[in-house]
Parts: sequence; structure tokens; C-alpha cells
Amino acid sequence: MTVRFGLLGAGRIGKVHAKAITGDPAASLVAVADAMPAASGAIAEQYGCAIRTIEEIEAASDIDAVVICTPTDTHAELIERFARAGKAIFCEKPIDLSLDRVKACLKVVRDTKATLMVGFNRRFDPHFAAVRAEIDKGAIGTVEMVTIISRDPGAPPLDYIARSGGIFRDMTIHDFDMARFLLGEEVAEVSAMASVLVDPAIGKAGDYDSVQVMLKTASGKQAMISNSRRATYGYDQRIEVHGSNGLVAAENQRPVSIEIASSLGYTRPPLHDFFMTRYTEAYAAEIAAFVAAVSGKGKAAPSGEDGLAALALAEAAVRSVAEGRVVKLSEVAG
Amino acid sequence: MTVRFGLLGAGRIGKVHAKAITGDPAASLVAVADAMPAASGAIAEQYGCAIRTIEEIEAASDIDAVVICTPTDTHAELIERFARAGKAIFCEKPIDLSLDRVKACLKVVRDTKATLMVGFNRRFDPHFAAVRAEIDKGAIGTVEMVTIISRDPGAPPLDYIARSGGIFRDMTIHDFDMARFLLGEEVAEVSAMASVLVDPAIGKAGDYDSVQVMLKTASGKQAMISNSRRATYGYDQRIEVHGSNGLVAAENQRPVSIEIASSLGYTRPPLHDFFMTRYTEAYAAEIAAFVAAVSGKGKAAPSGEDGLAALALAEAAVRSVAEGRVVKLSEVAG
Amino acid sequence: MTVRFGLLGAGRIGKVHAKAITGDPAASLVAVADAMPAASGAIAEQYGCAIRTIEEIEAASDIDAVVICTPTDTHAELIERFARAGKAIFCEKPIDLSLDRVKACLKVVRDTKATLMVGFNRRFDPHFAAVRAEIDKGAIGTVEMVTIISRDPGAPPLDYIARSGGIFRDMTIHDFDMARFLLGEEVAEVSAMASVLVDPAIGKAGDYDSVQVMLKTASGKQAMISNSRRATYGYDQRIEVHGSNGLVAAENQRPVSIEIASSLGYTRPPLHDFFMTRYTEAYAAEIAAFVAAVSGKGKAAPSGEDGLAALALAEAAVRSVAEGRVVKLSEVAG
Amino acid sequence: MTVRFGLLGAGRIGKVHAKAITGDPAASLVAVADAMPAASGAIAEQYGCAIRTIEEIEAASDIDAVVICTPTDTHAELIERFARAGKAIFCEKPIDLSLDRVKACLKVVRDTKATLMVGFNRRFDPHFAAVRAEIDKGAIGTVEMVTIISRDPGAPPLDYIARSGGIFRDMTIHDFDMARFLLGEEVAEVSAMASVLVDPAIGKAGDYDSVQVMLKTASGKQAMISNSRRATYGYDQRIEVHGSNGLVAAENQRPVSIEIASSLGYTRPPLHDFFMTRYTEAYAAEIAAFVAAVSGKGKAAPSGEDGLAALALAEAAVRSVAEGRVVKLSEVAG
Repeated sequence: MTVRFGLLGAGRIGKVHAKAITGDPAASLVAVADAMPAASGAIAEQYGCAIRTIEEIEAASDIDAVVICTPTDTHAELIERFARAGKAIFCEKPIDLSLDRVKACLKVVRDTKATLMVGFNRRFDPHFAAVRAEIDKGAIGTVEMVTIISRDPGAPPLDYIARSGGIFRDMTIHDFDMARFLLGEEVAEVSAMASVLVDPAIGKAGDYDSVQVMLKTASGKQAMISNSRRATYGYDQRIEVHGSNGLVAAENQRPVSIEIASSLGYTRPPLHDFFMTRYTEAYAAEIAAFVAAVSGKGKAAPSGEDGLAALALAEAAVRSVAEGRVVKLSEVAG
Repeated sequence: MTVRFGLLGAGRIGKVHAKAITGDPAASLVAVADAMPAASGAIAEQYGCAIRTIEEIEAASDIDAVVICTPTDTHAELIERFARAGKAIFCEKPIDLSLDRVKACLKVVRDTKATLMVGFNRRFDPHFAAVRAEIDKGAIGTVEMVTIISRDPGAPPLDYIARSGGIFRDMTIHDFDMARFLLGEEVAEVSAMASVLVDPAIGKAGDYDSVQVMLKTASGKQAMISNSRRATYGYDQRIEVHGSNGLVAAENQRPVSIEIASSLGYTRPPLHDFFMTRYTEAYAAEIAAFVAAVSGKGKAAPSGEDGLAALALAEAAVRSVAEGRVVKLSEVAG
Repeated sequence: MTVRFGLLGAGRIGKVHAKAITGDPAASLVAVADAMPAASGAIAEQYGCAIRTIEEIEAASDIDAVVICTPTDTHAELIERFARAGKAIFCEKPIDLSLDRVKACLKVVRDTKATLMVGFNRRFDPHFAAVRAEIDKGAIGTVEMVTIISRDPGAPPLDYIARSGGIFRDMTIHDFDMARFLLGEEVAEVSAMASVLVDPAIGKAGDYDSVQVMLKTASGKQAMISNSRRATYGYDQRIEVHGSNGLVAAENQRPVSIEIASSLGYTRPPLHDFFMTRYTEAYAAEIAAFVAAVSGKGKAAPSGEDGLAALALAEAAVRSVAEGRVVKLSEVAG
Repeated sequence: MTVRFGLLGAGRIGKVHAKAITGDPAASLVAVADAMPAASGAIAEQYGCAIRTIEEIEAASDIDAVVICTPTDTHAELIERFARAGKAIFCEKPIDLSLDRVKACLKVVRDTKATLMVGFNRRFDPHFAAVRAEIDKGAIGTVEMVTIISRDPGAPPLDYIARSGGIFRDMTIHDFDMARFLLGEEVAEVSAMASVLVDPAIGKAGDYDSVQVMLKTASGKQAMISNSRRATYGYDQRIEVHGSNGLVAAENQRPVSIEIASSLGYTRPPLHDFFMTRYTEAYAAEIAAFVAAVSGKGKAAPSGEDGLAALALAEAAVRSVAEGRVVKLSEVAG
């Protein structure tokens, strides 16, 4: 069986998914929709698929699944429409910036029994997935402490920041999902601290650019996250998990792994400078996992509920910063 | 000029300092005092120094400086006595577990104009010192975020834990000092989380064995600390500092740096299994710095005030855990 | 312009090139030929290309270039035929096991002015290419000493070994090419030592499985090569170049870059276990370079002369082992 | 029992041994002899030992052992004199530059049943010793291929080179000993290549500055050595051993193990810049091993015969370069 795809949104991340779909022997890209004809046209030409409207894709009998890459504020509505239309849905994170809106959307997904997968691509990075696999194998015993350091090469444009929902909902949300993925137990408490250290303009836009977060589960497992919107040495993405029998860690990835020695010392080139080159393999594996789920092989995960849980952690972090205290998840997600 | 030493306390750490003193061409070990004759006798025999009482050392004209390695609850009183006796004082951390007692002690030090240095040995580790030196050179621009991971190979005996003052005052205190050393700005806010994950008996003794802490300075600089009383792979001591122009990090130290490859992968031996072998160089450098200060070359640092500041951070962490909120340093150290 | 390809040979390496061609936007795979219908059929089905005979591809007006992946003993003849047919030619190494046969073949290539590129894929590995780029940038000054360690995960089947031309012509030849690529000056002298340490059956088949080679150029630049047919820890492929101002090295590649710490130490998973996964990126970059050359952008390199030069080094190594002496290239390639 | 030492020669390496002897609780430094009063005086003052003539040390009843650190051309005669005087002898390498002279000297040692240990300090480096220990434990199966890369930070003065016996006898000799130590089987064949790449003046002095050597044992085990008199990045000392079940390697040592990341990449400081700081621990362990042997605990190794064997390899390498062929050890050491 080949899973036949409609692609909603032909921007930067839409192109990534188009490449992943067409590179997967178990999938085919049937149609693309985008408000900008130039964007959909480029994908249609490169991959030989049709250009359609969203309505046409909704009604199409030759499409099994959609990938939603449109702007964030359209995600929840599109999920609901395509759930009702009987399509399997892969949606880029976040489902929505409002917890209530996400909950309402997920009710529709449950009621229609739709297949929904949310785009937390990092779970599919082969190195991070290997960390999780080692935990599952028992290599480090019981998980106790997770450490996540996640720093972007540079801050996004200010207008993006203004509508991003803030650093916790936009950037840390990946790390919240990763922390849940690695802890293997729901987070019960959140404490966060936030600063503007990179660019005062980000502060004026009402956001932070440097944050740190602590999480704790009911049984006492802990996680720490450090985020900065700027790292001069590239895309800094490290995770490690300390357990009762040891530690497992994934190191940073480099586009070129050479080392140059001179009188100044030993130098390796910087890290990847862009999330798309850093996570190339993850995007392909993510679509492959979705295709497998749609084909009845395995569950669609991370699920809508995973998306909701990560957003609730972001909400709790925002509140923790505002009120200078530890916030219980039950206050937010109740 | 040779600095002539009296050693107070001939236990484990006393032996370390005896070795450091006798290995330093600018220092000599004149006498040792210990309540246990076997302990002082061993040092006297190995290094050819006299055995004296504390009172005799206090009154001795052939002694310039003392190293205090006695039990914690005697530190403050001994500092005061030797300050009044006109001796330079090196005291193992902590000065006392009570902030008020430390403050009273430091008043005596100030009034007597005594030289006092506190044993935060990690500042003298050549690798950590090199991190600080790179910051001073401007290699990473402005300091923004400090990350400290500090885990012991195994927990101390329960009776030690019972009188230790708790993990924040006993173990994290080193990391509080390191965070201050690296941040270069006083901490204004503390948030901490604590669990018992390693040994329930530690919990029954009223303490925690796994903690994480976030610090923030007035200007928004951040630090994260992760502590566990147990790491199967050895003495895990990592620091890194992220700044506006880059990052500087000190990796773990290993007693043997070989790698073995086989069908199971590439394996390096575990880390040091004991703080004394891990910090051998630091202990020697620490005494050398004290000797230099006593000889009029440079200041005695870390000072008593550094000891007080680290203890105040521990106090704030304890309160943060108890009250589930961010604690301002002004509440504690006021 | 799209370069239209005919693929000759649909075995293991043929499939690799089919994937590279179809994944290159500037290339298309028009037809495949193989004596085994099952092999050509599999590629034709996967990529939607035609199945043709070699003769049909030779005569086809819709084909610009061929990739020769047939058995070694057909390479030289096919190169000559397709050179005369006016096609651009990419040929897997080696052109032939006989130096004289290669020379005769290259004469035809010169006479027909055909474009010929030989498949030394390692030059296109991004890490090895980055080493060469650093040399070109002057990062290490003048090249002085090259060190190449190249070990296979396991020995090929004995029947392969019997017709391989021996380890120097089959395996070390990649390292000879890499040494020439990195030295930047022709080799003048060769000394080699060879043993059977892995499998006595390889010795009975008249070959060696463990060899070491030294090379020297006229100006005194040096290179060392170490080869084994077996490495339990995976596909060991390291190069380093020492120069007047420093050293540049490419480390081994790993499919997963995680590290697990326990009481046994720190362990990273083994290396790649197969040359095709190790050199995935190199195969794609190699075809892209050929496509560029055929499209008039850049030269076809490595050339037939590079293939001849590497084979001459193998010939000299064979003679050095047989005669227990340093062999001058002029004796072999004269 | 304390081993009582006389030190012959108070130069650079003599000071190293004086420190090692006085730092060893099982040894004491009784006297020092040197033709230069300033040199012996410095050691006598620092460590409180006597200044004596060589004759006095020879006749002294309060001296058990001597350490010979005088110029190379005096070694053999001093070994013979002190062997006859009944002293245990530690002699810096080489015993002599002439194979015949060494053989004659070792005959005296055998006849007098003297204890003789030769100063191949690298065997006592904790990292190299750990490599050998892993081999002994069977971690890599049967040893097959040894790779040694050994480069000095800078060339010695020309007048030193002139009387050094040439790079093979002066510098490579350490690697010859290390190869024997790691191979665990006597070398049967040697092939060497030599160039002048670092400094033409070295060539004018009749020596080389860049050499590579291949060794082979009777059973086919192999070793490669690469030497340069100059490495801009510090004292480059790497060994690795490939075996039937895996590989074990010792990486370079660094005085400070930090890493700095910036937009230029990740940089670690250079290696040690001097053999004495690189091998500090080795020199202490070497004297400890000699003290143990003199005290009847264990054999004195490396022995005089080890010194002879390494010198024979150097002799063979010299001949290999001169004659452009593989030289059998039996030709040299016969």
C-alpha cells in the first residue's frame, strides 16, 4: 500500500516534508495547496504533483493523508476539517497556542477517530532516538535526571517572535517534548527563569531570549533545560539522561568532522547552522513513521495529546516566570 | 621567605594538605595537632614535623599559618582563636553551617585583620581555572549561562549525612561557589528542586540525594546545577559557560586516557572514583595560592566572604525547596 | 541541461549509482543493462527506466553518459566502446588489473577525446574532501607526512579474493589514490610489507590480508598506509596529513553518535559496518561531480590517468613485497 | 628497606630523576656527582644530599644504586665500573651508539650479575602502560598491527644532532622500544624511509628530520612508525594496537583539557610542549619500578638487552635507508 499525500502549505517546512514524502517508497505526493501560487507551483514542478485548493484536497478520493504546514493559527481548524473528512493528519507543531483551543480540537480528533501525529521531529533524530532506545534496553537503569541544552544559531525575525507565542511555546516546546520523551513519566512541577541577554529588541517585543527550566515528576525524576536564541558556534542540541546505572548522552552533530591542529591548538569546524540540515534525517524518519502508522503498522506518535502536554508545560513555565514560583501541572492542565 | 605551618586535624583531608605543604618549596610543616595520637603521629613520622596541641600551636612563635581540617563544628571557633593569635588561616569549607555564626566569625577576622582563605579547592583545578582564564581573556564575550553538572561516585555514610547540614550545604556548596566564580556577578534569585532517588535511607535521614538548582543574577545571567550523590561511571565534574561570543567548557578528567574498540563499540575507562585523585593538582595549587597570599603576593581568595556567600545560596536553596518558590538572596543574606 | 544516463551493470554498486543518478536533479536514468534480467528489472521498476542491451545503449541517441558497474574484466573494453560511441563514461575502479591494458584503453580515450571519470568515491566523502580543502587553504602549510588507516569490517568471499588482483590492487588502491590526492605530488618510491593474519584461507588463495606500505615523493614527502581485511569495531577509515604548520585529520564516521557511561566506562557504538552506508554521501557527490563535468562545469576527476597511477602504485607494492626492497615508480610505470 | 642512590650527572634529566628519587618513600638520594660544580650544587642544596666524585660514589658503602645521566659516550664505561662495584644501575638510554660496545658492556653486566635497567621512560607512562595491560588482559585478542606516531615540538640544537647518532638512534629508538613492548614478539625485518623536510641544516649535519619505518615479526605482525622533529601543535605521542578482536589506543595528553566554541569552531589548547611535562608521571613510575627491582620485588625491565634490541633496530633502519631495501635483523644483530 502506498500512502497518498496532500500537502497543505508549501513554505520552508512544506518543502522539507515534500522531499521526505517523495523520497519514501511507501508514500506518494498527489497534490499541494498554498495560498501563494509560486510556492505550490515550485513543489508541483519539482515533484510532478497536482496543485489543488484545500477544499479540493478535503474532497479528494485519491488522497489518504495530509501534512499541515500552514501558519500556526490555521492548524486547529484544518485538523478538525480533515479529521471530519476522514484523512490521516500530520500537523506541524503547535496545534494552537491556546490550551483550550487545542483541547477542543483534540475532542474532534477523538470523536472522528482520526489518525493525528504532531511534528516533534527531534524524537526521530537517529541519535536522540538511540538515547531513548538505550533507556528502553535498560542501559542506564532507572531514569533520574535529564539535561537538555538547546540553543539556536540566531534569533528569528522580530515579527516572527511577536506572533510565536513566546520562547517557551515556540522554542522550549521542543525540549518539553524531549524531556517527556526521555523521562518516561509525566511532569508534575515546573520552575522557570527568563532573561533578555541576546537582543533588547526581543525584550521590547515582550519575549525573552535566554531561559532555563526545571521539571520534576511525581516520583521525583528531574529535568533541566537551557535555551538561548543565539549560539555563535552553531545549532547546539545536546541531551543526556542520568540513571541509576549510568548515563547516556547524544553529542552535537557537525556537518564536517575534521580536526585541524596548529600552534593555536586543535580546532573542529562549527556545528550545523540551520535546523533543517541538522535534522535532515529526522524529518525523513518522521514521515516514514507517519506513513507506517497510516498503513496500520504502529501508532501515530507523538500524538495530539503529546502536543497538548508540551503546550501545558510551556504554559506552566510562563506562569512560573510571572509569579516567581514552582507551578504544578495540575494548575494548568486541569 | 618560607611560610611555616601548623596543621590542625590529621584526618583524610589533613593528609592531603600535609602533602601539599611539604611539596611546596615556599612552605614548611612545623607541627600537627589532632585529638587522635595515631593520626598526628602518622603525619609527624612521614614528614618529620612535631606533634603539638592546638594551644601550643596557637602560642608558637615558629608558626606563621594554620590549616584547619578539624570537624566542621570547630571551624568558626578555631578561626577566631587563630585570628586573634595573629596567624594566617586556611580553613576547609564550610566555616559553619549557620549563617549567623559565620557572620560573627568573619567580624572577628575583619577586626583582627587576619588573613583567611576558605578551601573551595575546585577554583584551583587547572581545567576550571583555565575556563575562568578564558572568560577573563574575553574568549566568549559576556557571560550569559553557566551549566554545572556535579555528581559523586557514591553517597557518604549516613552518619556523615546526618551532620552534614544537608546536600545543599555539603555538596552543592562547591557548585554554588563555582557558579559565583564563573558568573562574575552576585546571584539574586535561587530556585531549587530536590528528590530522593538514590537511597531511601538518605530521605529518612531528612536529606535529599538528587537536586537541581537555577540561579539568576540581577542583570539576568543564569546558572543551572545538577547534583547526584551517585554516578556509576565515576566522579562527574563538568562546567560550561555560554557567552555572547561562544562557549567554554571543561570536560571530565580520567585517570587513564585510552580507548578500546571491539564489536561492542569504543570504550574508555571510567572517570576518577574519588575526589582526592580527581583534585590532586587543585589541592597543591590551592596551598600554593595561600602561601603566596601569606607571603604578600596576591590576595587570599576565596575569602571568608566567599564562604559566606556560598552558604547563603545553600540557605536560599533549602528555603526554595521548602516553599516551592523562587527565593531572593536578599531574603537570606540581608 | 539534464544528463541522460545508461547504467551498465545492476548489481550492488549499480544500485548505489542508480539511486545517486535519480536523486540528482541535473540527471536522469534512461536505461539499465544487465546480463541478469532480475537485476535490471528491479532497477527499472524502482526508478521507471527502460531495460536495454549494452548494444542498444551504445546506439541510443537519448543517452549522454554511461556508468560502468560490470565485472572488472569488462571495464576496459566497455570504456573503449563507449568512448568510440561518443558517450561520457563513469567507470568503477579499476579500469583493469593489467597496467598495459589500462594504458591501451586510455589511449583510445585520448584519441576519441572522450570524457572519462574513475570511481574513487572516497575523494568525494565530505570529511576527506574537507581535509583536502584545508590543505588547499594553507591551514597546515606544506604537506609532509600522510597517514592512512583503512580497515574493512570483514574479508570478502574467497572467490572474490581469487579474482580481485590481490589486496594491493583491490583494497589498498583506494588508499593509493587517497595518498596521491593528499600528497599533491607524484609518488617516486614504494615499500610494502604483507602478512596473512586474519584468515589462512586468504593466504592459500595466494593473497595477503594485512599490509603496510610506505610511499615517498621525489621531494621527500612521505605517506604510510595500514590495511587489514578485518576490524571488529567496524569500517575503520582514517586519514591525517601532517604539514609544516600543523595537522589535519578526518575521524571515523559513526551511524549513531551517542555515548553510554556505566561502571564499565564510557562506550560509543561501533563504526559503520558497510562501505555503502559509510560512503552514502560520497557516492551522491561523486555522481554530481561527473554530471557537472559532462555538463561542461569542471573537469572529470579523478581521471583515467589517476586510475592508472593508483594501479601502478599497487604494482610497485606487489613487487616490493616479492623482492624485499624499495621499488621506484619509474620501474613500473615507465 | 630504603634504596640509597647516587646520582651521576646533574643536568636536565638528572634533575628529573633527583625529583623522582626524593619523592619516592622507598628511596633516598645520598649523593650527586657532576663535572660542573654549579649543577651538582643545585641538586645538593635542594634535596640536602652530599656532593661526591664518581670515584667516591663507586667506593661508598652507603649507596646501593646509581642513576647514570652523564653524556652518552660515558654510559657504557660507567655501567661497567658500577657493575663491578656491585651497585644496581639505572642508565639513561642509549647504553652506547655502537652495537659492539653495547654488547661488550652487557657481557660485563652478565658476568657481574649486576642489576641494570635502561631508561625507556615511555613504558611507564600510565596511558601507554594501560594499553599494554589491555593487551595482556586479552581485550584485543592477538596483536596484529602497531601504529606509532611520535613527533617532537621542535628540533634539538644542531650540535646535539651532530653527536646524537642520527634520528633513528636518538629519537626513533623510543618508538622501536615501544613497538617491541607492544608487539610482544621480536622484530625480524625493517624498512625505513627518511627525508629532510623540517630544516635543511639538519640535512647538512648528515641527519634526517622526518622518517617513517615499517617493522615485521617472524609471524607477520606489523608495526609502522612516523617521526618528525617538529609539530607545531605540541608533543605528539600516539600509539595504537590493532588485534584480532579489536583495537586499543592511547590519545595525546594535554596540559589543560578545556574546549572553546565560537564562530570559528571548537578549539582545544595545544598539547604539552616539552617531553618532561608530558612524561612527568612516567619518570616517577620508572624510578619506582627500579627501586622495586633493587628491593627484590620484580625484574629490572627494560633491561640492557632491551636497550641492545632497540639499538639494533635503529642500526637496521639506517642500513635500510642507505640501501633502499628491507633489512633483516639477523644481518645487524647476528
